[in-house]
Amino acid sequence: MSSDTTSLRESVRAANVALAQQGLAPFTWGNASAADRDAGIFAIKPSGIPYEDLRTDDIVTVDIETGETLEGVRSASVDTPTHQRIYKDFPQVGGVAHTHSHYATVWAQACRAIPCLGTTHADTFAGPVPVTRFLTPTEVDTDYEGETGRVITTHFQAEGIDPIHVPGVLVAGHAPFTWGATVEEAVKHAGILEEVARMALHTFMLNPAAESLPAHFSDKHFSRKHGAGAYYGQR
Amino acid sequence: MSSDTTSLRESVRAANVALAQQGLAPFTWGNASAADRDAGIFAIKPSGIPYEDLRTDDIVTVDIETGETLEGVRSASVDTPTHQRIYKDFPQVGGVAHTHSHYATVWAQACRAIPCLGTTHADTFAGPVPVTRFLTPTEVDTDYEGETGRVITTHFQAEGIDPIHVPGVLVAGHAPFTWGATVEEAVKHAGILEEVARMALHTFMLNPAAESLPAHFSDKHFSRKHGAGAYYGQR
Amino acid sequence: MSSDTTSLRESVRAANVALAQQGLAPFTWGNASAADRDAGIFAIKPSGIPYEDLRTDDIVTVDIETGETLEGVRSASVDTPTHQRIYKDFPQVGGVAHTHSHYATVWAQACRAIPCLGTTHADTFAGPVPVTRFLTPTEVDTDYEGETGRVITTHFQAEGIDPIHVPGVLVAGHAPFTWGATVEEAVKHAGILEEVARMALHTFMLNPAAESLPAHFSDKHFSRKHGAGAYYGQR
Amino acid sequence: MSSDTTSLRESVRAANVALAQQGLAPFTWGNASAADRDAGIFAIKPSGIPYEDLRTDDIVTVDIETGETLEGVRSASVDTPTHQRIYKDFPQVGGVAHTHSHYATVWAQACRAIPCLGTTHADTFAGPVPVTRFLTPTEVDTDYEGETGRVITTHFQAEGIDPIHVPGVLVAGHAPFTWGATVEEAVKHAGILEEVARMALHTFMLNPAAESLPAHFSDKHFSRKHGAGAYYGQR
Repeated sequence: MSSDTTSLRESVRAANVALAQQGLAPFTWGNASAADRDAGIFAIKPSGIPYEDLRTDDIVTVDIETGETLEGVRSASVDTPTHQRIYKDFPQVGGVAHTHSHYATVWAQACRAIPCLGTTHADTFAGPVPVTRFLTPTEVDTDYEGETGRVITTHFQAEGIDPIHVPGVLVAGHAPFTWGATVEEAVKHAGILEEVARMALHTFMLNPAAESLPAHFSDKHFSRKHGAGAYYGQR
Repeated sequence: MSSDTTSLRESVRAANVALAQQGLAPFTWGNASAADRDAGIFAIKPSGIPYEDLRTDDIVTVDIETGETLEGVRSASVDTPTHQRIYKDFPQVGGVAHTHSHYATVWAQACRAIPCLGTTHADTFAGPVPVTRFLTPTEVDTDYEGETGRVITTHFQAEGIDPIHVPGVLVAGHAPFTWGATVEEAVKHAGILEEVARMALHTFMLNPAAESLPAHFSDKHFSRKHGAGAYYGQR
Repeated sequence: MSSDTTSLRESVRAANVALAQQGLAPFTWGNASAADRDAGIFAIKPSGIPYEDLRTDDIVTVDIETGETLEGVRSASVDTPTHQRIYKDFPQVGGVAHTHSHYATVWAQACRAIPCLGTTHADTFAGPVPVTRFLTPTEVDTDYEGETGRVITTHFQAEGIDPIHVPGVLVAGHAPFTWGATVEEAVKHAGILEEVARMALHTFMLNPAAESLPAHFSDKHFSRKHGAGAYYGQR
Repeated sequence: MSSDTTSLRESVRAANVALAQQGLAPFTWGNASAADRDAGIFAIKPSGIPYEDLRTDDIVTVDIETGETLEGVRSASVDTPTHQRIYKDFPQVGGVAHTHSHYATVWAQACRAIPCLGTTHADTFAGPVPVTRFLTPTEVDTDYEGETGRVITTHFQAEGIDPIHVPGVLVAGHAPFTWGATVEEAVKHAGILEEVARMALHTFMLNPAAESLPAHFSDKHFSRKHGAGAYYGQR
């Protein structure tokens, strides 16, 4: 199978390097993965390897259904079960990124969802970026990383949020996860989430009573870029 | 007409690259344009093209009066009708820049005008940088980008603000627009607005009751650099 | 003895350069040292030399027990007695770093311990990063730098904090010290402390009532990386 | 006289470039000068020239007593009379720097002196960095830049502050000036003031009731580096 997954693994290597280069994953705090839905697998960063040392061969492939490692001499990221759960429960997702980017992590630590305060947010996230509940002691003790994924996907399901319309989340007390149709999109969403989180913090410092953008405004901006009526960019 | 507009389009390409290089337009969030008043046209960035990929031939030219695309195989920026409105209503303006620069956007999201708190502000903006009202649902639905321009120019007209004395504005819930005699000046004003916005936020954090600079002070600083009695720089 | 200490002194030179390159020690505000426990010595930066000019031969070696300079034509850092005290009282420590990194210093100036607000903190510091009391006038007048070390180590002893579980401290009104098994680890902890301090400041700005991470959560994250049950990284 | 002043003018060129490179003078907002006390002159940046274009020949020399331009085809900085007043009234000063560096300017805009909150401050400034009063309309109208210098030096004289112990000031509503025995020291103090101002702002955000460092502590730190008992650095 090795020859088949080279380009998948290479895209994951490049995406992890991009996370580091954009300052979204200081130290080794972050990882990105990409799925091959036809093959039923995803490829993910190995655990604790500095981004600048990553080679394509270091990338590990994993079975989406079972979570078992298929290829790779390295140990997969400890966060692999979280990625796996997102791929299982969000079938439209082709790439996932996890970072400890500064401002998004601050919102996760403050246990607050990021409201949509302007068009910068609305262009990418069609509504607030939600924050999960804390994991229970039992969840932490039994299958910590898998339960982290479950607390994400059940939140979206319970609240009726479309993960393609809101391609990211804050895990309470921890940090953000983002996703997209591809791993490149997941990384881009990680960068936009960081800027949106930073803007929202500073907006509240200037105006603690700042209100969400009126819906007619935010819907317009999201639909300029997404869906059948989109007219942003070249066609 | 193609040969006539090469230098105009090249100045617009360079100005858009400058916005990106100065960190004022993360991702593809920004665009700059320049007018040729004799020809009755302006040149503007195409929509959604990364700044580093822009070639002079990608720049689109547009009729100031009708808004119609004259030259260009690319689609013009979705914000073109906003630029057009500014050129129509502010005849002294030769260049326009739109960004989502961090701190200026924060003030736009907080729906607050930026008061003149010091000489750094007064050197460029002869008074507060105003914030518009929100667009109505009808304005958003019918001609969103054109109405964005209209809400800007009608604000200046209603308040009696000279757009040459205050070469920028915050669109509520959205982001800043700046302008100048040339597109280079519009880009420079975008950079100064960002620093002025950042200084004002931090000043209010330190002193929530900070007051505007006394008029005798701010008038002096603006007139050191502008108008008949200016004595800053080389003559 | 000179030939024996070359690699020790070289590791200290490189660690000091790393502090500067990571922006943790603006101007010459910082110093790092490494111990050779078998030889009973440590090597430390000379006082007031710009990091970019440091040569291995400039690094000074000092007797852990007596504090006397053993090798070196340069004067040792004025903070040498603080390092000495940490080596004497914390026998597991092999490297020490002192910086005036921005956000950690802000917490020291505010005289507040940094609570564990998220997993980014818990991954490295198994509890709050403590702040010492102020030194008394007598302590300042008699043996300022030695007493700075004593106020650190007595705080850990009095509070029963294991210096390997919490590898850093804030000296009230002054700045942070960090340490580790090696000088490379001490420098890494200085960088992580800075990011953790910055995250905690911004978290309190967003949520002044932010609470410490539940213990079941923070214990899990520390133990993923440290101790017998660790499973982070490659094995 | 031209050959005599080449090294003086070159030091001023380099100092102005250093202000820009350290990010202390965005756009052309800043200028540095150096005095030759034996010749009774100082050399200063020309007005409005971008730092990267400065050549040694562009630097203007001025008579300390009369303020008249001696050499130079360029117009001297509009702030020249402020520098002149500082040289006249502070005879120990050999170099002056003026910037609009972000955080120092924020304190000037907030009209607050920067208290000594930690040893980082005390190492360079033996007490608070003072803020002047606002200039009166008459002062602004008659000799604005000269009066700016006068409001600085009369503040130090009235408050009995030694300008060598506190080598900088904030002009209310405007920005900082720093100085030193040489222009290199004036530039260094501009950089340290910026960091000290940034630390103090963040300290107050974390602890609005933060108090000044006890005198026994701040005196110790200043005297480690300055005066007869200094023991910091190489001797």
